[in-house]
Amino acid sequence: MENEIVIHNGTLLTMEQGLPVIENAFVRIKGDKIAECGPAVPGRRWEGATLMDACGGIIMPGLVNGHTHTPMSMFRGLADDLPLDVWLNEHIFPAEARDINPESVAQWTAHSCREMLAGGITTCCDGYFLESHAAKAMADSGIRAVAGQGVIDYPAPGVPDPSNNIAHAKDFIEKNGTLSPRVTPSIFCHSPYTCSKQTLVAGKNLARDKGVLFQIHTAETRAEPGMIKENTGLSVIAYLDSLGILDPDTLLIHCVWLNENDIGIIDKRGCGVIHCPESNMKLASGVAPVPDMVAADLTVGLGTDGCASNNDQDMFSEMDTAAKLHKAVRLDSCVMDARTCLKMATIDGAKALGLGDVTGSIHPGKAADIIVVDTTGLHMTPMHDPYSGLVYAARASDVFWVMVDGKVCFKKSPPVNPLGTDRRAG
Amino acid sequence: MENEIVIHNGTLLTMEQGLPVIENAFVRIKGDKIAECGPAVPGRRWEGATLMDACGGIIMPGLVNGHTHTPMSMFRGLADDLPLDVWLNEHIFPAEARDINPESVAQWTAHSCREMLAGGITTCCDGYFLESHAAKAMADSGIRAVAGQGVIDYPAPGVPDPSNNIAHAKDFIEKNGTLSPRVTPSIFCHSPYTCSKQTLVAGKNLARDKGVLFQIHTAETRAEPGMIKENTGLSVIAYLDSLGILDPDTLLIHCVWLNENDIGIIDKRGCGVIHCPESNMKLASGVAPVPDMVAADLTVGLGTDGCASNNDQDMFSEMDTAAKLHKAVRLDSCVMDARTCLKMATIDGAKALGLGDVTGSIHPGKAADIIVVDTTGLHMTPMHDPYSGLVYAARASDVFWVMVDGKVCFKKSPPVNPLGTDRRAG
Repeated sequence: MENEIVIHNGTLLTMEQGLPVIENAFVRIKGDKIAECGPAVPGRRWEGATLMDACGGIIMPGLVNGHTHTPMSMFRGLADDLPLDVWLNEHIFPAEARDINPESVAQWTAHSCREMLAGGITTCCDGYFLESHAAKAMADSGIRAVAGQGVIDYPAPGVPDPSNNIAHAKDFIEKNGTLSPRVTPSIFCHSPYTCSKQTLVAGKNLARDKGVLFQIHTAETRAEPGMIKENTGLSVIAYLDSLGILDPDTLLIHCVWLNENDIGIIDKRGCGVIHCPESNMKLASGVAPVPDMVAADLTVGLGTDGCASNNDQDMFSEMDTAAKLHKAVRLDSCVMDARTCLKMATIDGAKALGLGDVTGSIHPGKAADIIVVDTTGLHMTPMHDPYSGLVYAARASDVFWVMVDGKVCFKKSPPVNPLGTDRRAG
Repeated sequence: MENEIVIHNGTLLTMEQGLPVIENAFVRIKGDKIAECGPAVPGRRWEGATLMDACGGIIMPGLVNGHTHTPMSMFRGLADDLPLDVWLNEHIFPAEARDINPESVAQWTAHSCREMLAGGITTCCDGYFLESHAAKAMADSGIRAVAGQGVIDYPAPGVPDPSNNIAHAKDFIEKNGTLSPRVTPSIFCHSPYTCSKQTLVAGKNLARDKGVLFQIHTAETRAEPGMIKENTGLSVIAYLDSLGILDPDTLLIHCVWLNENDIGIIDKRGCGVIHCPESNMKLASGVAPVPDMVAADLTVGLGTDGCASNNDQDMFSEMDTAAKLHKAVRLDSCVMDARTCLKMATIDGAKALGLGDVTGSIHPGKAADIIVVDTTGLHMTPMHDPYSGLVYAARASDVFWVMVDGKVCFKKSPPVNPLGTDRRAG
């Protein structure tokens, strides 16, 4: 008989259609899947099930970090507040050349996974070099992950000869397809300006052939559209489209420098987009036109980016920043409301990664990727609206229970209500 | 004999000139003052003193929250993502009319103080109505505070007849001057567009007469310069200057819509400025030209603003946002570096409030307003630079020990290093 767990005594946000708020709810988990959820039924008993008391907190799907470079936690705070070229050429590239090896990739990916799980992230989308070592560490950590082998037309860790980059990625995908049911291999072409047309096309063909996600940093910096225009006469998005690369299995990361026409192309092709506001801010990349993408109904998720450019992997902070940044820049306090940002951090991110049927919301049949958030903190009290509380006040440290695929991956002591009041519903 | 406490085994950031980083440091506190600090001296014994083990964390001055409305924590998350007029007229003003009374002001000020202290804020600058009740709660909480009685030319809680607003503020200042050595009364004129010329001048005269800080929301919204220009032909700052209001004892809050000439006037008059990036973003007020103010060497502190517009009182988040926002908007990754932001949140904020000789840095003779920050968190590891770690990765929940005026106001269990490594210096 499969193990049953029942989470009870909490406010449930399923992140399903209509974004309901179900007070005094339960979620029943059978094995690795969600079996049932809804409002508590008085008198119902859960024989044989393990009970998990949510202590009046918020029960919700685990967060989806749509873009990171997990091993780069080793470079957290190594260099900040510098011009991009100085940061890359004098700090990050030398550090990578010196410190990146199979052991360090495994060690710091494991560290990143623990950081993410402790902050309520149950799924991440990674892209780096020596990715087989990252994939193994992600599988071992318990997190759900898309693991993208990096492809770039320069010598890179594990791929000293760039002419082997696609073959190396092919080998990675073939060897890691059955590593773990939670880890999906992928190919991560670094960018339209560090990969040739031939590399991009071969990378996408490989992804299509293997049925995996094709990830690419797209239109991240202000310089990029000019470079691509000079070489091709096209915008970054139009160029990628001209190569036949854009489809629903392509994930466009950053998308800071788009025009209206670009958004139309992305919409037509059905690509997912990952918005990384904190990285874009810290590296002075600019402000992506995310409200326009949301208005055009693109599938937009949120990502932290790697720790060299953020410097943490904290999706609560990322939601808060996403909600505020665009209001300031657009002088419009209505854009990027709390519900939109929480959708981006859960179900929309999952859809962008091609995992919309698996995770990102709480629904019978989906994987049991669930977190419980303490709402008794002084900074969370009073709680007029749980969406507002999660986006504008909650911290990653408020997460106190994390489950992936039905397995508890992180827990800490349940909250002791400092106000001594009963905040439970019903 | 006065009580002696010695904090040891931590990295000390004094926030004094040159921003030194003193590894394996100590701070000796005698009574309510800092007596001595520096690198650990091998073999030195602390007879009769109480030892506080910083557990390898960061020892630093408590944070200075330069602007808040403490009772408004009762409205946290009440209404978000709305146009300013709908937010104010349909939600905040009715809620204030309904819920603001002496008891609620005392209760939620106490709540805000606990929230702030738990997040490492040892000084706050408050402005609200029924401020005597807020001042009492702040005094009782242990926090250091500037308590500003609100003045506005409309009926307000406690001041139903606006023609009494200055007399009411005078009474507040006279009655609360000796409430606590930690609480300084002040007058808070709401804004140049809600207070008449007569009110502003009388308010500033009262402040001068009593030797207290004069606080005012200044050039917060995009509409404000137009309103003032229409009535006076002047910019907001030039208008206030024409009334003789600007001097080093005037605190200008927000300063979003300034021109270059305005910054010159503020510089000449020596006013302090408080930057509230998260509030300005969430309310879509705009982006203050803070890098220009910093370049002009103005005294700029940071503030959270009240919980109706943020929605928390978290200066770690505020530093992080300040550091990133201006980089994105200016497309310059070098502006607002971590050290600048930490100065704004400590010594520069203290100076802006007129408390630069009392708090904001760790120096013999200054008040013992000290916090200790846990650096063992996964999100803080590795720690290449403590300034970067504090601004770009630390959370308010990493603070585990808080002292104001030599008294411990908050503590939680010292960190257990999850990595099992020894991170102590020396």
